Amino acid sequence: MRGTVLYGPRDVRFEERPDPTIIEPTDAIIRIAATCVCGSDLWPYRGIAPITQPQAMGHEYCGIVEEVGSAVKHITPSQFVVGSFATSDNTCPTCQFGYQSSCVQREFMGGAQAPLLRMPLADGTLVTTPGIPADDLIPSLLTTSDVLGTGWFAADAANVKPGSTIVVVGDGAVGLLGVLSAKQMGTERIIAMSRHEPRQQLAREFGATDIVTERGDEGIVRIMDLTDGVGADSVLECVGTQEAMMQAIRATRKGGYVSYVGVPHEVELNGEELFFAHVHLHGGPAPVRRYLPELIDLVWNRTINPGKVFDLTLPLDRVAEGYRAMDERRAIKVLLCP
Amino acid sequence: MRGTVLYGPRDVRFEERPDPTIIEPTDAIIRIAATCVCGSDLWPYRGIAPITQPQAMGHEYCGIVEEVGSAVKHITPSQFVVGSFATSDNTCPTCQFGYQSSCVQREFMGGAQAPLLRMPLADGTLVTTPGIPADDLIPSLLTTSDVLGTGWFAADAANVKPGSTIVVVGDGAVGLLGVLSAKQMGTERIIAMSRHEPRQQLAREFGATDIVTERGDEGIVRIMDLTDGVGADSVLECVGTQEAMMQAIRATRKGGYVSYVGVPHEVELNGEELFFAHVHLHGGPAPVRRYLPELIDLVWNRTINPGKVFDLTLPLDRVAEGYRAMDERRAIKVLLCP
Repeated sequence: MRGTVLYGPRDVRFEERPDPTIIEPTDAIIRIAATCVCGSDLWPYRGIAPITQPQAMGHEYCGIVEEVGSAVKHITPSQFVVGSFATSDNTCPTCQFGYQSSCVQREFMGGAQAPLLRMPLADGTLVTTPGIPADDLIPSLLTTSDVLGTGWFAADAANVKPGSTIVVVGDGAVGLLGVLSAKQMGTERIIAMSRHEPRQQLAREFGATDIVTERGDEGIVRIMDLTDGVGADSVLECVGTQEAMMQAIRATRKGGYVSYVGVPHEVELNGEELFFAHVHLHGGPAPVRRYLPELIDLVWNRTINPGKVFDLTLPLDRVAEGYRAMDERRAIKVLLCP
Repeated sequence: MRGTVLYGPRDVRFEERPDPTIIEPTDAIIRIAATCVCGSDLWPYRGIAPITQPQAMGHEYCGIVEEVGSAVKHITPSQFVVGSFATSDNTCPTCQFGYQSSCVQREFMGGAQAPLLRMPLADGTLVTTPGIPADDLIPSLLTTSDVLGTGWFAADAANVKPGSTIVVVGDGAVGLLGVLSAKQMGTERIIAMSRHEPRQQLAREFGATDIVTERGDEGIVRIMDLTDGVGADSVLECVGTQEAMMQAIRATRKGGYVSYVGVPHEVELNGEELFFAHVHLHGGPAPVRRYLPELIDLVWNRTINPGKVFDLTLPLDRVAEGYRAMDERRAIKVLLCP
């Protein structure tokens, strides 16, 4: 088969690779129905997260099971499945607490931007859909694998509730699906911070009631104005930079909640400022596996349509163009079809 | 009157000062029944928190109301009262969310190590006891003003629940009362980190089931051993140093809770480590006013006896000796009687 490999900054190649095979008896092989490019793929693509050797790319996936290892009990060939970007056994104490993305056996997935994928820990990582989905459901099912699951965790970790006033920092696909998640959780007031017209439109479509275009200190002043000087109940930090994190903390009311779901790059939090900010802070790699059954259900019943974040669809062999479009912010998120 | 003034590192003087008077109509004047030295008083005493001018010391207090301003409605002379180390109007949105120690009108108290104290925002800060307390209740009532309220917040902010396994980092009076608070909240497993025999004893008396004497990385290894490699559900950081904070974060299970209640001194948290630690983090100045009615009740009914943290009692005019005893860790906490 041919798959996607990153060789260095901005050097994405779609090249011949060996077909994946069952290695461990807990593995499965999946034929990918759709995959995509993640915001986090852009960190190594841009050379910000260094890579030391060619890296098989892609960790968002859904598709049909081709083959399972001898120890796989709950997943069978021909089923349609979605799984998390992080593998989990779903039985260890950490999994049982609902933090499957920190499972003791966790591996971060790679190699999903290809027609075939080897899935370790298939039983603990994959969730089946009620049947083979209609084609138009596939983009939305794909989002549950990471980008929706991460936006959902952002809302959950920020204690979003009916009646909350929430702010979403970051208008990437995760931030936009943070808006959708908060709306789905019953929030009436959702302030999206975005300066890009197409993203503002999608934020509104997903449930944003206010758009703030200012950033940094000016953005904080605007949030304070919009909340009568109190700050927001919950702020979802969906970027991963120092500026975004401080913007989130400073826009939150005393006793409010800040979540952060993108790997922080060179972020340092000053203890004293955090102390007097008086906020709750929670984040980390989204435990997508915990949310998958509920999110698949919401998509299957067409209650939500998170697949709208894909504003560019490309055949998989044009994956390099997908990276370029996201890097240049010409696309919010790129869907790739094998 | 004579009151306590800090002039510089280790220079505590008990000297003539003007009697306090009503300045604002929302003020009250209290005749102090008992006061004490706080762990946080040691920061400026040791020269770690710089002071630029002589500073009236003391922010823990209880006593009898002598006089009230014209706008005070709920507090009247002759009542016995306890109040928080931070004033609050108890009506602003932040107070209504239960974060009175970040009230928009907050002032941090000073001057309580004296026979008379001016209390701003008397109605919003003070809570009356059911009557004039017996003498032996006064030390415990005094603790509700800060040290117990802070230990209680540490347990509450760390989501302590029946069935939790908790760790307390720090064997100062706040840490010890964090143990008592966790016990009162129904926890069965309380691991206290302490290397000082008298403090270990008191921790056990307050409910600690395990004592860990190791610190830093060795301490974390011990906690992991005691929790089958998973980490604690809740860790109360009651010190305020980088080492204590990292010890707390690294001893917590994925998805667990870390609270921190002492002003962090030169603490910096690395975003990436925090992200992969997957913990909840909450802390700040304890909103003592929120807890005062409940804590006064628990003391009044003799359900708890937090006054045991006072292992040295001195007449107020020997306050300088009290600071020395705490600085040298000869005393856990010093009670001062006017």
